[in-house]
Amino acid sequence: MIAVYVLCQVLYTSILAQSRQMEWVPVAPGVWKAVTGMPENMDPLRVAGIKPNTTALEKMGDISFPEHLRKSTGEQSDAGTFLSFPLQKNEQLYGLGLNFKSVQQRRTVKELQVDHYGGEDNGRTHAPVPFYVSGNGYGVLVNVARRVKVYAGIIARKDSKDPPPEMNRNTQRDWNPEPGSDVVEMIIPAAGTEIYVFAGKSPLEVVQRYNLFCGGGVLPPKWGLGFTQRTPTLFTDQQVLEEIAAFEQKGYPLSFIGLEPGWQQYSYPNNFVWDSIRYPQPQQFVQQLLLKNIRVNLWINPYISSHAPFFKNMQPYTGSHLVWAGQVPDLTMAPVQDLYKKLFTEKHIDIGVSGYKVDETDGYDFWLWPDNAKFPSGLSGEQMRQVYGLQFQKMSDNWFREKNQRTYGLTRASNAGSPSMPYVIYNDYYNHRDFITALCNSSFIGVLWTPEARSSKTAEEWLRRMQTVCFSPMAMLNAWADGTKPWTFPEVADEVKEVMLLRMQLLPYLYNTFAQYHFEGKPPVRAMNLVDGFYFNATAERGNLSSSDNPYEMALRRDINDQFMVGDYLLVAPLFAGQKERKVVLPQGKWYDFYTGKLAGEGNIIEIKQEMGKIPLFVKDGGMIPMIPAVLHTPRKNELLPLHIKYYGNAENNMELYDDDGETFDYEKGNFAKAVLSVKKDKKGTLKGNAVLPESKDFHYNKVTWEFMTANNDK
Amino acid sequence: MIAVYVLCQVLYTSILAQSRQMEWVPVAPGVWKAVTGMPENMDPLRVAGIKPNTTALEKMGDISFPEHLRKSTGEQSDAGTFLSFPLQKNEQLYGLGLNFKSVQQRRTVKELQVDHYGGEDNGRTHAPVPFYVSGNGYGVLVNVARRVKVYAGIIARKDSKDPPPEMNRNTQRDWNPEPGSDVVEMIIPAAGTEIYVFAGKSPLEVVQRYNLFCGGGVLPPKWGLGFTQRTPTLFTDQQVLEEIAAFEQKGYPLSFIGLEPGWQQYSYPNNFVWDSIRYPQPQQFVQQLLLKNIRVNLWINPYISSHAPFFKNMQPYTGSHLVWAGQVPDLTMAPVQDLYKKLFTEKHIDIGVSGYKVDETDGYDFWLWPDNAKFPSGLSGEQMRQVYGLQFQKMSDNWFREKNQRTYGLTRASNAGSPSMPYVIYNDYYNHRDFITALCNSSFIGVLWTPEARSSKTAEEWLRRMQTVCFSPMAMLNAWADGTKPWTFPEVADEVKEVMLLRMQLLPYLYNTFAQYHFEGKPPVRAMNLVDGFYFNATAERGNLSSSDNPYEMALRRDINDQFMVGDYLLVAPLFAGQKERKVVLPQGKWYDFYTGKLAGEGNIIEIKQEMGKIPLFVKDGGMIPMIPAVLHTPRKNELLPLHIKYYGNAENNMELYDDDGETFDYEKGNFAKAVLSVKKDKKGTLKGNAVLPESKDFHYNKVTWEFMTANNDK
Repeated sequence: MIAVYVLCQVLYTSILAQSRQMEWVPVAPGVWKAVTGMPENMDPLRVAGIKPNTTALEKMGDISFPEHLRKSTGEQSDAGTFLSFPLQKNEQLYGLGLNFKSVQQRRTVKELQVDHYGGEDNGRTHAPVPFYVSGNGYGVLVNVARRVKVYAGIIARKDSKDPPPEMNRNTQRDWNPEPGSDVVEMIIPAAGTEIYVFAGKSPLEVVQRYNLFCGGGVLPPKWGLGFTQRTPTLFTDQQVLEEIAAFEQKGYPLSFIGLEPGWQQYSYPNNFVWDSIRYPQPQQFVQQLLLKNIRVNLWINPYISSHAPFFKNMQPYTGSHLVWAGQVPDLTMAPVQDLYKKLFTEKHIDIGVSGYKVDETDGYDFWLWPDNAKFPSGLSGEQMRQVYGLQFQKMSDNWFREKNQRTYGLTRASNAGSPSMPYVIYNDYYNHRDFITALCNSSFIGVLWTPEARSSKTAEEWLRRMQTVCFSPMAMLNAWADGTKPWTFPEVADEVKEVMLLRMQLLPYLYNTFAQYHFEGKPPVRAMNLVDGFYFNATAERGNLSSSDNPYEMALRRDINDQFMVGDYLLVAPLFAGQKERKVVLPQGKWYDFYTGKLAGEGNIIEIKQEMGKIPLFVKDGGMIPMIPAVLHTPRKNELLPLHIKYYGNAENNMELYDDDGETFDYEKGNFAKAVLSVKKDKKGTLKGNAVLPESKDFHYNKVTWEFMTANNDK
Repeated sequence: MIAVYVLCQVLYTSILAQSRQMEWVPVAPGVWKAVTGMPENMDPLRVAGIKPNTTALEKMGDISFPEHLRKSTGEQSDAGTFLSFPLQKNEQLYGLGLNFKSVQQRRTVKELQVDHYGGEDNGRTHAPVPFYVSGNGYGVLVNVARRVKVYAGIIARKDSKDPPPEMNRNTQRDWNPEPGSDVVEMIIPAAGTEIYVFAGKSPLEVVQRYNLFCGGGVLPPKWGLGFTQRTPTLFTDQQVLEEIAAFEQKGYPLSFIGLEPGWQQYSYPNNFVWDSIRYPQPQQFVQQLLLKNIRVNLWINPYISSHAPFFKNMQPYTGSHLVWAGQVPDLTMAPVQDLYKKLFTEKHIDIGVSGYKVDETDGYDFWLWPDNAKFPSGLSGEQMRQVYGLQFQKMSDNWFREKNQRTYGLTRASNAGSPSMPYVIYNDYYNHRDFITALCNSSFIGVLWTPEARSSKTAEEWLRRMQTVCFSPMAMLNAWADGTKPWTFPEVADEVKEVMLLRMQLLPYLYNTFAQYHFEGKPPVRAMNLVDGFYFNATAERGNLSSSDNPYEMALRRDINDQFMVGDYLLVAPLFAGQKERKVVLPQGKWYDFYTGKLAGEGNIIEIKQEMGKIPLFVKDGGMIPMIPAVLHTPRKNELLPLHIKYYGNAENNMELYDDDGETFDYEKGNFAKAVLSVKKDKKGTLKGNAVLPESKDFHYNKVTWEFMTANNDK
C-alpha cells in the first residue's frame, strides 16, 4: 500500500506537475469553458442545477474570447490545482466573493470560503463566489466546491515579462511595499476544476452573461418586494397578530412576517414542528394571515434535534460531527431531500407558509463541522461547507416550484450558480457603511443582499438604516432580538413611514427591474462600476476635467462604495448617521433630483446637503419611474392598480414595463405582458407621454398618469 | 497519465482512507514518537537540527506514556492527513503557537501558519508551533512543515462516547453555543507526519522534556542579556557613536546596538554591503564599539537585490516569485547557505559583528511568495513559509558556532525545534497587554519573545513598557522609526534608568535562569500555569478558600495572562498605562515584596497599589536573588564582580549559581562552574547565608554579601 502511495507521489509530482495552457471551448454565446486536471463530481453549478438561458445569451450578440487569457494555465501537484490568469496594466478587478469593505479587488489575497463575515475582506464570507470581473470586459469563474486561494495581481513572478522595478528604500521616497503583479494565481485543494470565461463589452455585460448562463436572475413573487418584519423569537400567535394589527392601524406597510426559532417546539437543534403552546393551531393562524394578505416566513437551521419526526430515518444520512449537539444532514443525498420535502411540505407549505429563513449554513468554524468531517455521500467537511447553503436554497426552491408557487427567503450562505435562487443573503454583522459596500459587491457575483435594520442607538441612525434597506432586494426589519418597530423612534416615525411607503409605490419599477435580472441578467442593485460611462471613459475623460472634478479617474483609484444604482434609472446615495452632507459621483449625462426633478449634475462630483427626512435619490436623463399608490400590502393576484409615471429630464425615451401574475412560474411559459411607455416631444417641443398597455390578464396596471418632473415644470 | 492519476485517487481514498491507531515508540526518556502515512522529507525538527539532551532527560527520571493517548489515530486521504487525540474532562490545553490574547486554548480552532500576528488568536502567528501542553501532564507535537488546522476540543463527534447533551434554546437559559468536544482533531495537507508525545508530572515537566529533546534552551552570551537600542535607519557611524556616548554620559546601560536597513547600500531588497557614505570604514567602526564593550547587531531580511555581490551565483537557487522585486533564496540548499556564509562572514562577522535582526520572514501573504511558489529544492511556497525563519536562525547560528562565538539576535518567524536557537521573536504589533500574554505563551512552545518598547503616547506608558521589556529575554528599545531614547520622557527618565540598571544588577540571576533553560529545559520566562501549585492543587484547594479568594479555581476558568515568572523565584506583575492598582494571583506558599521584603500574601489574590516608579515584583519564600552592582555594560570576559544576594522569607534553602565564560561554546564541553548558595538557621534561629564559590576561571563573582530582606529585618 505504502509502495503504491509512493508511486502516486512520484507520478503526481513528476508526470502531473507541469503547467499546461487551458483549452477554451465555447459552451454558450460569449461563454467559454476549460478543464484542468480531474474535476470533482460535485461542484456549485451542479448543486445549483443551472439551466443556461441560451436564447437571451444569443440575443446579446456575438463577442470574441478575450485573447490575452489564452495564456492562462492550469497545473496539478500533490498540493492540488494551481491556476494562472494573465492581467493587463491598469486592469481593475471586481467580485471575488461578497466583500464588505472594498469594491476593487486587484492587489488582494483571499482564501474564498463560506463563513460568517468577520470584518476583513480576506475571502471568508457568506458568498465566496470564485468569480472575478475585469474592468477590461471579461469574467473568470472557477466552478469548484473547495476553498480557493486567490492572489489577485499581488505577488510578482520571477519569470514575468514585466516585473516591478527594484527600488532602494534607503533613498527612494516612493518605494512601494506592494509593487503588484501581472497575474492572478489561484490554488485549489482538488485534483482539478472547470473554469468558465464570460466576455463582455463592459463589466455589466460580463455580469449579464454570468447571470444568464446561470439561468437568469430570480424573479421574486411581488409580495417578496414588499416590507417584512421579523417578530421576537418567543412570540405567540396572538402576539404576532397584535404586531400585524399595529402595522395596519399605524399605516405602515407589511407584506410578510418572519417567525424566529421559537415557533418550534425544539430549536438549536430543531425539530421543525410548531410549538403547541405558542402556536396551537398553525394552519388556522397562517390562513388568517393570508386573508390579511400577509405571508409567513419561518426561521430554521438545518441541524436536527432527536425530537424531529424524521430523526430516526435521517440517522444513516448525517455527518460525522454534531452542531449544537444536533445531527448534520447530508443535503446532497436524495433520501435526505425526500425526508425534508415530506416534513416541510406537510407541516409548513401545505398549510400556507410562503418561505424560509435558513440560518447558520455559513459558519463559524467553532460552530460547524471541521474540514475533515465525513458525510455519507463521501463529501468532506470542506466541500460540504462550500455548498451547504446553496444546496438548501436549491432543495427548498424545488418544493415551491412543484406547487407552481414562487418563494422568496433568506440565506446566510451561497456560492456560484446562485442568481436564479429565490434567496437574499443576510448576516449578524451590523456596520451600516459596510452593508452598503456589500450591496455594491453583490452585483458582481450574482447574489442578493439585504442591509437589514435591527436596532439603532439614535433616531437618525434608525432612519438612515431603514431608508437604505428600502432600496435593497429585501426591505426587512429583523427585530427578533430587540423587538424594534418602525415607529420605535417617534422623532423619525413619519420619515420612516414615508420611505417604507415609497418602497411600495416603486413596486412596478422594482418588479420591472427584477424582470431585467431574470430575462437580461442585469442585477437589480448595481455597483457604480457596472454603469456604462462611469468607468470606461475614464481615460478619455481625463483630459477634459480637472482631477478634483473628475470622478472617473478617481473611480479608478478609489472605491465608490457608498452609492449604487437600483435598476437603469435610479441612483441611490444613502446618508449615514452623523452625516449632514456627502459627495455623490454622477456618471456621464444629466442627472436629476428624484424629489424635485431639478438638474443635480452631469458627469461630475456633487456635494449634497439633504434635510433629515429623505434619502438622496437621482434619476438619469430620460428616466421613467412607474409607480402605484402607497398601498399597505403588495397587491393581490389580479388586483388592478392605477399607474403613475414620473419622468425626468428632457430626452425622449421609451421603455417596456413588465408584469405577470406575480405568484406563479407561468411567466416561464410566456405568460407575462409588457406595456410600452414612450415620451416624445410634440411640435411645440413639449414632452408628451404615451403608454401602450397590453390587453392581458397578466398586466395589472391601468389609468396611466404622467408627471414630468423636470421638463414641463421648467416652463 | 490521467489514468494513472485516477488510479492514485482511487488508491488514496480506498486503500489509505482508514483511520489507524498510532503506534508509539519511545525515542528518549519520557518522549514517544509515532508515524502516520508518509512523512515529508523536510520538517521543522530536521531544519532545526535538534540534538536531544538524553542525559538531562534521563536525569528527569522515568515516566509512563499517558494511557488515554493510546486511542489517538491517524488517517490519510486525498485531502491530506487527519489526526485525532482524545481529551479528558476538565483538561486544559496550552500552547498551539505564539498567541497574544489567550493562554488557555481548549475550545479553539486554529490554522497554524507562519504570519505576522493580525490581532486574532487564529493560528497566524510568528511561531505557529504545532505543540500543545495538557494541564493533565503531557504534550503533543506534530513535526510537519505545513499549515496545521487544529480543532482543540471544540466540535463534538457523532461517535463520541460522551457527546454534549442536546438542549432547547427556546426554554433553557443555560443553552451553550459551544458545547465542546472530547477530542483534538488536526488536518495536515501532507501525505503523513511524525507525532511526538512528551510526558510530565506537571505542565512544566512536559515543557522541560520538549525543550531538552530539542537540545535544551539557548544559553545567550552575557552581553545578550544586557540592554539594547536600535538606531534610526539612516544613521551614520558618527550618529551611532553619539548615541552611544549619550547613553554613557547620562548613565543608561547599553550592551549592544542595532543598525537598521540603512547600514546597507541597497535595502528592500538588500545587497548586504555597508553603505560607503554612512559607514565608510565598517571594520574600524565595529572594533571601536567593541572597545567600548558594545556589540553590533545588523538588520537584514533575506531578499536579494541585484546589487548583492552573490546575486548572479544565487540565480539558480531562488524561488519562482519575487519579494519587493528581490529574489527569494532557497535557504534549504547548500549552495545558498555557502554563499550567505561567505558573504556574511567576510563582510560582517569577521570584522566583529555579533548578531542579526532577521526581518520579514513571517508574512504578510500580500508581501511574501504564494503557497504555490516553487523553490529549486522542490519545496512548495507553503512548506518554505513554515520554516524560512527557522532555517535562517539555524544557518546563522552555525556561522557563529564555527567561530566558537555565541550570538543572540532577533527573528520574526520560528517553528518547532527552536529552543536552542539564539533568537528572540519580535513583531510590529504594539499592544502592551497582548505583548505580556505573548510572553506567557512563549514559555509553552520553546520560543523567546520580547515585548519591545518603541514609543509611547504618555510618560506613564513609556515607563510601563520599559519596565516590562526589562523583565523579558531581550531588553530592547526598538527606536529605528521614532528615535525614542530611554530619557525621552523627562518625568520618568529616572525610573526608566532605575529599571534598566536593575536589569543589569539581576544579570547573575538571569544568566543562571537561562542556564536552567539550557541544562534543565525550564523556560526563563514562565506562564503562571507552569508554576507548581498554581494549577494542579486547584481541586484540592477549592474546599478551603472562598471562591473569591481562590485563585486556582479561577485560574481554571479564566486566563492569568498579565503576570509571569522569571526563573524559579521572581514573579513579575506589570502595571499598564492608566492602571493605578491591580490584582496579583499568588501561587501557594508565602510570597514577599521584592523591594521591601515584606510578606505580600500566601496562595491568594492580592490587590496592590504601586507608586508610579516601580514594577511590582514578588519573591517566593526562600528565594535567593544573586545580583551584581549596577554596571553600564555587561561584564567583559574574565571580569570579576562582587556578588550581592537578596534573600526572602524564612525558609531554609539552597541553590546552585551557574557561570561560564559568557561568550563561547566551551560550556558544552563542561567548561563551566557552579557556586552553592545555602541559607540555614543557626541555634538562635537566625538565618545565615553561606556561599561556596568554585575555584574556577569560569566563575566570575567574588566578595559575596547577603541581604536578608525579610527574616532578619523582622527582628
